[in-house]
Amino acid sequence: MGKNRSESRTEKSWQSRLTSQADAETASFLASLDVDRALWRYDIAGSLAHARMLSESGLITQDEYQRIRDGLHSVADDIEHDRLEMPVELEDIHMVIEAALIERVGDVGGKLHTGRSRNDQVALDLRLWARDAIDDLCSRVAELQRAFVDLAERQGKVVIPAYTHLQRAQPTLAGHMMLAYVEMLQRDADRLTDCRRRVNVCTLGSGAAAGTTLPLDRERTAELLGFPRYSRNSIDATSDRDFLAELCFDCALLSVHLSRWAEDWIIFSTGEFGLLVLDDAYCTSSSMMPQKKNADTLELIRAQAGGGIGRLTGLLTLLKSLPIGYSRDLQDDKRFALPAVEACLSALKVAAGVVATARLDEPRIADALEDGFLDATSLAEYLVLKGVPFRKAHQVVGGLVVRAEREGKRLAEIPLEVLREAAGQVDADVEKHLGSANVVKRYSPDGSGGARQLLKQLNYWKRKLD
Amino acid sequence: MGKNRSESRTEKSWQSRLTSQADAETASFLASLDVDRALWRYDIAGSLAHARMLSESGLITQDEYQRIRDGLHSVADDIEHDRLEMPVELEDIHMVIEAALIERVGDVGGKLHTGRSRNDQVALDLRLWARDAIDDLCSRVAELQRAFVDLAERQGKVVIPAYTHLQRAQPTLAGHMMLAYVEMLQRDADRLTDCRRRVNVCTLGSGAAAGTTLPLDRERTAELLGFPRYSRNSIDATSDRDFLAELCFDCALLSVHLSRWAEDWIIFSTGEFGLLVLDDAYCTSSSMMPQKKNADTLELIRAQAGGGIGRLTGLLTLLKSLPIGYSRDLQDDKRFALPAVEACLSALKVAAGVVATARLDEPRIADALEDGFLDATSLAEYLVLKGVPFRKAHQVVGGLVVRAEREGKRLAEIPLEVLREAAGQVDADVEKHLGSANVVKRYSPDGSGGARQLLKQLNYWKRKLD
Amino acid sequence: MGKNRSESRTEKSWQSRLTSQADAETASFLASLDVDRALWRYDIAGSLAHARMLSESGLITQDEYQRIRDGLHSVADDIEHDRLEMPVELEDIHMVIEAALIERVGDVGGKLHTGRSRNDQVALDLRLWARDAIDDLCSRVAELQRAFVDLAERQGKVVIPAYTHLQRAQPTLAGHMMLAYVEMLQRDADRLTDCRRRVNVCTLGSGAAAGTTLPLDRERTAELLGFPRYSRNSIDATSDRDFLAELCFDCALLSVHLSRWAEDWIIFSTGEFGLLVLDDAYCTSSSMMPQKKNADTLELIRAQAGGGIGRLTGLLTLLKSLPIGYSRDLQDDKRFALPAVEACLSALKVAAGVVATARLDEPRIADALEDGFLDATSLAEYLVLKGVPFRKAHQVVGGLVVRAEREGKRLAEIPLEVLREAAGQVDADVEKHLGSANVVKRYSPDGSGGARQLLKQLNYWKRKLD
Amino acid sequence: MGKNRSESRTEKSWQSRLTSQADAETASFLASLDVDRALWRYDIAGSLAHARMLSESGLITQDEYQRIRDGLHSVADDIEHDRLEMPVELEDIHMVIEAALIERVGDVGGKLHTGRSRNDQVALDLRLWARDAIDDLCSRVAELQRAFVDLAERQGKVVIPAYTHLQRAQPTLAGHMMLAYVEMLQRDADRLTDCRRRVNVCTLGSGAAAGTTLPLDRERTAELLGFPRYSRNSIDATSDRDFLAELCFDCALLSVHLSRWAEDWIIFSTGEFGLLVLDDAYCTSSSMMPQKKNADTLELIRAQAGGGIGRLTGLLTLLKSLPIGYSRDLQDDKRFALPAVEACLSALKVAAGVVATARLDEPRIADALEDGFLDATSLAEYLVLKGVPFRKAHQVVGGLVVRAEREGKRLAEIPLEVLREAAGQVDADVEKHLGSANVVKRYSPDGSGGARQLLKQLNYWKRKLD
Repeated sequence: MGKNRSESRTEKSWQSRLTSQADAETASFLASLDVDRALWRYDIAGSLAHARMLSESGLITQDEYQRIRDGLHSVADDIEHDRLEMPVELEDIHMVIEAALIERVGDVGGKLHTGRSRNDQVALDLRLWARDAIDDLCSRVAELQRAFVDLAERQGKVVIPAYTHLQRAQPTLAGHMMLAYVEMLQRDADRLTDCRRRVNVCTLGSGAAAGTTLPLDRERTAELLGFPRYSRNSIDATSDRDFLAELCFDCALLSVHLSRWAEDWIIFSTGEFGLLVLDDAYCTSSSMMPQKKNADTLELIRAQAGGGIGRLTGLLTLLKSLPIGYSRDLQDDKRFALPAVEACLSALKVAAGVVATARLDEPRIADALEDGFLDATSLAEYLVLKGVPFRKAHQVVGGLVVRAEREGKRLAEIPLEVLREAAGQVDADVEKHLGSANVVKRYSPDGSGGARQLLKQLNYWKRKLD
Repeated sequence: MGKNRSESRTEKSWQSRLTSQADAETASFLASLDVDRALWRYDIAGSLAHARMLSESGLITQDEYQRIRDGLHSVADDIEHDRLEMPVELEDIHMVIEAALIERVGDVGGKLHTGRSRNDQVALDLRLWARDAIDDLCSRVAELQRAFVDLAERQGKVVIPAYTHLQRAQPTLAGHMMLAYVEMLQRDADRLTDCRRRVNVCTLGSGAAAGTTLPLDRERTAELLGFPRYSRNSIDATSDRDFLAELCFDCALLSVHLSRWAEDWIIFSTGEFGLLVLDDAYCTSSSMMPQKKNADTLELIRAQAGGGIGRLTGLLTLLKSLPIGYSRDLQDDKRFALPAVEACLSALKVAAGVVATARLDEPRIADALEDGFLDATSLAEYLVLKGVPFRKAHQVVGGLVVRAEREGKRLAEIPLEVLREAAGQVDADVEKHLGSANVVKRYSPDGSGGARQLLKQLNYWKRKLD
Repeated sequence: MGKNRSESRTEKSWQSRLTSQADAETASFLASLDVDRALWRYDIAGSLAHARMLSESGLITQDEYQRIRDGLHSVADDIEHDRLEMPVELEDIHMVIEAALIERVGDVGGKLHTGRSRNDQVALDLRLWARDAIDDLCSRVAELQRAFVDLAERQGKVVIPAYTHLQRAQPTLAGHMMLAYVEMLQRDADRLTDCRRRVNVCTLGSGAAAGTTLPLDRERTAELLGFPRYSRNSIDATSDRDFLAELCFDCALLSVHLSRWAEDWIIFSTGEFGLLVLDDAYCTSSSMMPQKKNADTLELIRAQAGGGIGRLTGLLTLLKSLPIGYSRDLQDDKRFALPAVEACLSALKVAAGVVATARLDEPRIADALEDGFLDATSLAEYLVLKGVPFRKAHQVVGGLVVRAEREGKRLAEIPLEVLREAAGQVDADVEKHLGSANVVKRYSPDGSGGARQLLKQLNYWKRKLD
Repeated sequence: MGKNRSESRTEKSWQSRLTSQADAETASFLASLDVDRALWRYDIAGSLAHARMLSESGLITQDEYQRIRDGLHSVADDIEHDRLEMPVELEDIHMVIEAALIERVGDVGGKLHTGRSRNDQVALDLRLWARDAIDDLCSRVAELQRAFVDLAERQGKVVIPAYTHLQRAQPTLAGHMMLAYVEMLQRDADRLTDCRRRVNVCTLGSGAAAGTTLPLDRERTAELLGFPRYSRNSIDATSDRDFLAELCFDCALLSVHLSRWAEDWIIFSTGEFGLLVLDDAYCTSSSMMPQKKNADTLELIRAQAGGGIGRLTGLLTLLKSLPIGYSRDLQDDKRFALPAVEACLSALKVAAGVVATARLDEPRIADALEDGFLDATSLAEYLVLKGVPFRKAHQVVGGLVVRAEREGKRLAEIPLEVLREAAGQVDADVEKHLGSANVVKRYSPDGSGGARQLLKQLNYWKRKLD
């Protein structure tokens, strides 16, 4: 029956069918240990559950189960303490662990793979990993949301310009802008939560493609691993990587969100805009220019959208045209999904620090606030209340702005009679509609940038993020 | 007060602030009418609801409302019958409709835009469109799923090879493979349904960025348009395009799924594989080679993954680094989302036709079924039941396969004594574990490719897709 | 011999092998006429050359050639004047033209396709198109480069801040910045020129995949169409779309370049930066906010990087895993390449207009120029000339900046004794190294942002772009 | 003058301007040492040349130069032998090397950065790296081309089907198909060579953005580093990453090529196609199914197109909208370019091994060769030579194929009178036009799949790849 498998840790256990072996370069090309060793905990957990189910189903004895279990614990302990050799010829963490097990417990270790294929095993490990990854991402998203909420509480009542097209648009409370980022992030959390439902399915028992003739108890394995259900179709279960593609998309969109915020803040903290002051701890200077203070952390956060989108594109492209049923191409799924999550986790962490230590530059903001005719819309809306159709009101105010700009005045500085001449129905109460502070006070519907709305939103988020 | 706006249909209504006009080339560059005219129904619907709310809130009179409403209906009628001129200088469908309205009903038409900006209006129109698009996609997905289920009922009991690595792996019922595609598509439907919840939010009342000082009734507008809720933050509401990115992702992954299925079936219908016969109506011949019958529809379906992934990448990249608050970049969102949906709808339709008219080539399948040692796993599992550790059983059978291949035999043709010599515990009952038909009968757990499992799955899907 | 082909314009000429026909929906799915009708001139040109070669090679008579040639001219005339019906059942422009030809000239038209397949014909048409597209792109790139050079001549001597990390870095002449864009664009032109060499290869004579048994004169066809060489391998020639992928990449990177420039100028023309004033003709206002002047053209130019990258990704993904030998997937190549070129051409045109009409806001620039310690590096370099190691000099100046910032001073306003105390070797001549104007004068090596360098570069570009 | 820099290896040398420091997590987020340490040789080489130029230009003394040079050699030696600590706080390999130098040679080390910024230094290092990377890629491409040429010599005269749409199309010599791959790869080599010209430009002397006031000799530095020219514009030079984007594109298209070839060969080596036999050394078996022999190496090669396209997309997206002038986002360029090259190098190596050890399964090919009417086009072309218009000939043969298929015959088995009845002008010599071997003999023009053409191509490639 050939040589004893347990004598040779570096020989793959399934190779009796093939008569020549890969050379070192090819072996290293085939291997994914550099990336999938990160999955070791999940592989051990899956094997423990599988072995227990096998014993409960009578496919192995209680004694065999205990030896396998103890062996797996011992392997886990060695990996945890970085004591397990992982020869690249074994290709992946799954074979490394199985080989180490057999080495320790002998032939009984060869029973662990009963009714199991690497195909359903890998799918399981990835799902266990993805479930944890989502939970970690959601925590970090909430942490960043809380940082924005805190800033909205600290300095949220400062009136600042809201921008469209990067031009000054309407006045708003600063807190309103901070909560816009919170909204954006909440959708990330919601999408991740939706994705988690599709992750949370047990694939064990699917075999290599079409299942197994052995009487496995799939419900039990699922239960032991905390899955609410198991997969319905073995072919699909072993070749589906939708959950990773979806996770990569969620990470990509999250990274795009962070890039939008980073872009805002990079611009807001320029010498020219001067709305925000970032803490020195999140900036660096220049190797050549002694005066520089650059928002490098924000730039690197912004840059991550490149990697985020690239990984998503890469994984989807990998899946394109791939026949169903497992193909080795799927091994590379991890090269997209694992760094996608890793990158988001670290960007979120640093982002929370940036937000927590940033402050609005209130004096400079106040200085420049009345530039740019932020109250023009309010004036047009005042005319609407006086009965002027909005389109006419818009046109009238547009003309007044051109005139005021030419004369170097603000709208509030235009004499009442001039306003009347241009627009007809203007009373002295118009002054309560001009100037950013007044405008902000008058914002009416929910969702606008005024104080009442901010309070309501802050309450909502503080409760939700608690 | 300047010239009468209603005199000039091609002048943009907000241009009093600017003193020079775009030339024709620039005007055409700025315009999105070629793509957003598809949104006209949604723009009219949104304006009708907005006008009604304005009248109920006292911002316009009941009479003004009726004139606006009738005007909008008349404009809609003209668009429906392709009678409305759409000068490119008006840039987009929103301004085309407003200009046409003002032309018909006079200055009162200028009241429609009260408390509204193109920014929240466009967001609304896109959401109304996306809601319908998702519903259409879900119907078409279900139609294709039903075609697979029907095929699984027609010829599902044929035993075929399941493939991994495109090599023959384990035997399975054909219906099991068809239902693998159904599973895949169901996740598409689920994701679309999740996306719909995030689409289904009313943005009207957000103004250009920070809201409005006019007392709008946002709850009422939302209700009139069938939205369960309205947006919480005006800045976010006007610059959020997550729902389109998510929709594009759902379409991209759907197109990847279709590419995987198309690839399978292109290969299965080659002369060499010969598993499937496609209907001539879905094939074409060659302009040069008279004998050809090519699966062109499947190839074009496969190709759509390129466009699907490209559009997703494109939209995410467009959003990357974009400051929040509306920027004109967002106008191009439609150039990704609309064709993404269109392409999926037509591919799904054609796919359903391909599946409905395809048939398995039963005689040819039967001929080749016992090639490739599909029962090798079953034999190893037989040994497991006799107490051999799976790893050893695997190794023994691997050796037997090499030997059988050399001798040009099937496993079932190996004499019992040879099996015994190699594997020890083999009895005459081993014959019930060999041969594809026997293996399929023995599949045990849920989700495997046998008859009992197929029946259960078919029942599940017939009920679900009913 | 079946029915007369010329009776039925809408029946595909190769369909005798198949017994059922596509329904309308499938026919429309199979068709690419909506996009490839743009190739009609190239298809006619290719057929004219092919027919002439056939007659010169004796495969058709001189008379047959003339009838085919006249027929093709008549078809071309009808297409040019939009008089040719193009039934979607004919799928593509190639079959439309052939069917129209046969209808006009009878069976002799059926000789045109002698020794030719749609596979080598389509490849040819695309190469003819791509060659022209590259020439058009190069012209437009040069036009935009000239606009930058003109601006560098008009206002190039204005001293402005060069930015790194969007923070003020070193002073530079404005012309130097304008020529940075010219450099970037030159690489686009160079890449396109390289791509053109790979485009410029004749594929006719490759047949469907493996060639033809007919004695074609490939050299002659190539010569007639202006190709310096013909393809070496028929399988490669019919399935190669590298030249389109490369063209899409060149367009993508060009669009990224335009996005970088657009981003710069959007920021430079904000109220806060105020470096640049854009002409109103390239801006729009807001539908709600009467005061707005937005750089919408720049935003749309920036947005095109999304489409540019998306199309490249899409085409590469389409090609991924595609077996060599023509597959119908390739039909969709046009859906990426044609709009990629179209989008770049129109963006380049508009960009040239934006640049030609823009002006630097010299008074505002002068006002703010000395903010941000732009001369700090120069001061450090002064110390270097006095023997201080650069790292120490950098450190000393860094400290001086902190101090000056605290005291609200510029570096030039720090008393000499304070400088000496901090840095040691400082003489009165230090004043010639402080202040932006002085720094710019002192720039030494080629490629720096001073006047001498600018002059040299301007001369270079004026000669090159002439 | 503050504390001695050489006391503190982990403090960044430019930080005197900032008053608080990044925590460990932020420091690690800012660092790129994990990826850019691969650039160390290039950084040392660049610094050696810069220092030499500084001394030749009189900016440092000959003695200072020698101390710097010796210090750099000693640092290089330590890195080579993995003896240099690289604290993450130093962020990147450039600062690690400078800090180590200063530690060894004292303050004189602080003179190395004279007239240099990390911005032009990083650009230089990347260009030096990219130049070598391109040379390596070109060697490996040639190696793979030679493997195909060898195979074309070993078994190139075997007649096989050429496929279109994965359906049997025309007969060809196998060598012709192998050389199709060689053509494809040659374009990769050509593109890389074009890219190299754009890489091969020296950026040193550009400073941080606008140059330097110190009198550097840029021509000399370029010469010392083997660059034929130096950059013309400092702003462009420090923010240009086109050369990396182009390199990533070249790698992406190369990876797409490999995926097309891998797909072909995965299919050709299935049980069903049986054209090719891969060496066991490049295959693996299954953990569950003892009979499997899977083309895993080819699958992993195919999968790399995902990473290849993803990295290209990622880098382009990173660059999108990035203001010119260095931003920290550019630090992440290496995360795309370095693994892009690495992945291609290893895939090319393994691919060459796969090709070198593969063999065509001649008996099986011969068995199946006459399936699929590969001679149908030849028959139609025979009719053309008899004067039948090609379209009619095509139609006639199409009908004959339907009939032959129905009767289970080959075209060569159809009686002459039947051929005559269908097609008119058929003589006994038609038999020389039927059967794959005859067809291949008759291929006429250059570039077709016959023996004469193959010989010519083989000669061409052997000379070129010598």
